[in-house]
Amino acid sequence: SAMQSFARDVKIFAPYSIYKGKAALSADPRLPTFRKLESGGYRVERRGVILLTFWPAIGERKYDWDKRKVFALSATEVGSLISLASKDSCEFFHDPSMLSSNAGQVRKSLSIKAHADGSGYFISLSVVNNILKTNDRFVVPVTSAEFAVMRTAFTFALPHIMGWDQYTNQLPHGGNQS
Amino acid sequence: SAMQSFARDVKIFAPYSIYKGKAALSADPRLPTFRKLESGGYRVERRGVILLTFWPAIGERKYDWDKRKVFALSATEVGSLISLASKDSCEFFHDPSMLSSNAGQVRKSLSIKAHADGSGYFISLSVVNNILKTNDRFVVPVTSAEFAVMRTAFTFALPHIMGWDQYTNQLPHGGNQS
Amino acid sequence: SAMQSFARDVKIFAPYSIYKGKAALSADPRLPTFRKLESGGYRVERRGVILLTFWPAIGERKYDWDKRKVFALSATEVGSLISLASKDSCEFFHDPSMLSSNAGQVRKSLSIKAHADGSGYFISLSVVNNILKTNDRFVVPVTSAEFAVMRTAFTFALPHIMGWDQYTNQLPHGGNQS
Amino acid sequence: SAMQSFARDVKIFAPYSIYKGKAALSADPRLPTFRKLESGGYRVERRGVILLTFWPAIGERKYDWDKRKVFALSATEVGSLISLASKDSCEFFHDPSMLSSNAGQVRKSLSIKAHADGSGYFISLSVVNNILKTNDRFVVPVTSAEFAVMRTAFTFALPHIMGWDQYTNQLPHGGNQS
Repeated sequence: SAMQSFARDVKIFAPYSIYKGKAALSADPRLPTFRKLESGGYRVERRGVILLTFWPAIGERKYDWDKRKVFALSATEVGSLISLASKDSCEFFHDPSMLSSNAGQVRKSLSIKAHADGSGYFISLSVVNNILKTNDRFVVPVTSAEFAVMRTAFTFALPHIMGWDQYTNQLPHGGNQS
Repeated sequence: SAMQSFARDVKIFAPYSIYKGKAALSADPRLPTFRKLESGGYRVERRGVILLTFWPAIGERKYDWDKRKVFALSATEVGSLISLASKDSCEFFHDPSMLSSNAGQVRKSLSIKAHADGSGYFISLSVVNNILKTNDRFVVPVTSAEFAVMRTAFTFALPHIMGWDQYTNQLPHGGNQS
Repeated sequence: SAMQSFARDVKIFAPYSIYKGKAALSADPRLPTFRKLESGGYRVERRGVILLTFWPAIGERKYDWDKRKVFALSATEVGSLISLASKDSCEFFHDPSMLSSNAGQVRKSLSIKAHADGSGYFISLSVVNNILKTNDRFVVPVTSAEFAVMRTAFTFALPHIMGWDQYTNQLPHGGNQS
Repeated sequence: SAMQSFARDVKIFAPYSIYKGKAALSADPRLPTFRKLESGGYRVERRGVILLTFWPAIGERKYDWDKRKVFALSATEVGSLISLASKDSCEFFHDPSMLSSNAGQVRKSLSIKAHADGSGYFISLSVVNNILKTNDRFVVPVTSAEFAVMRTAFTFALPHIMGWDQYTNQLPHGGNQS
């Protein structure tokens, strides 16, 4: 059916973006891909993530999107973030070249640190690239209200990036089934 | 397809309304609008909100809808409200003419104040209009049970006003796709 | 379209039922009805509820469905139940004949009382009918695990009984729209 | 309608899997089945579950799927798990041959024990089979982040395994209904 094939390819852009003094941060979900099995079923092929994008301020209310760096939160990292207590902190490390010959050359770390007074968090991304000899660091202060949006939206998105939204009862609601 | 075009324009009216002695308060979500991109994707054009409407009592069980004033909660303000602890308070300020030549002439403030005993909240809207020389103020006491409904319904609605409900896996469930 | 008209009328029976020594209790949502407006939109006509049904045990593992009594929880009563702390209690009163000439003749009360040790709740329904001279009382002890199911399922159902699940973004996902 | 009949039978494989030193654990929901009533409605016939599968490690990063054992969590057991406080524990017992002549011959127990420091849980499955004279035991340490994923995904799935996702408002969104 042409309509459904079309629907599968529609790209949605609805990031949650936070603009602060030195950098901006946006979050949006990337859904898993499914592989069709010979049995007719579908298996998750690549897990979904929530993609965090950081890009630097280069003047008043001006930000440079070309200098963005990303960090892709796995389901388990999302679980860590949404269950963070108001005074807790957590840190994740990624090596985008893991298992390749460049393993260890690029190190990304994302840290979420609570303000001492519980009024919010610092979310920081550090990217050290030994090949390009670059070292990028972004820090975005996030208020409790903004973090509550992230927590709620990530909790909503988690079953979708896991593919669990596909486990949905499909009654033969209409038509002439026997 | 005519059916789907039609569906997009259907307006739904399902406000959650609370009628109290001096005023009534209702809440309902307003979804974002999307703009179709040349690439075929869709980008959020105008963010959704949860619209709070206040209107005054003018007699026993009689309320004057014509005197209503509204306050449109952004995603981040919704995040603040749904994460409010049982003894906390918060306040938001809006200038509906911001960035126009009337900036600063109309000031709206919404305040949510917990009762000292944790039994509920006062939700108040104040609208000061220097052009019309008007000053409206509404106060609606909200019980914990009513606030729990708002918290649950707003938590449900938040991903929708952000447009995140559109990030949904679309398996080719039926038909004759290859 | 015949298919969709049909779909609207499909009745679903998926109660959550708890069978205990003296009575059984089941819960299931009843959705709101909508009225079509001349503008083409839809307005909630009758609010949805979560229906609690109690029926008595009449022997070992035998229960008498014909002697059932119901209590229809409004959205706000559901809000009260799902926000109940583990040692709290609440009670609701209904008069099914309110505003009729039989007002006050039938009194229903539903009470939810926490066990002192936080291990669960007693959920009780009392129905006093002065016309039929009957007085029914059901008490069902509910464990914390069973109450957690009710809390989770009621939280899921609340936006549906309010009609908020109809506020859903409808992108023109497929077809040949311009 | 052929399309919808097809859709009902699509199998989805999107387990949440945790690989640890001695065993792996995966979770995925199994939806209820519905029976069509003569009235045209649908009643839940077999309740859904969340299926936990354990299988042993047989070397570094190698696991033996053929030696897997399963434990099917009922809605109420899911309620127990998702409401577990960070220092609590719980245990469930199943007899897969209950009500048959083999009753009592196979005993399964699933236990969830919090680490003393609140940093996670041990999830263990023990299967004692008196007929085959086998005794299997799996222990999987689960971090708080992994448990948060399970809690969030199970909370999402619970209304689906109960069949409550079928109570969904079906407005005549399109077409030419009168």
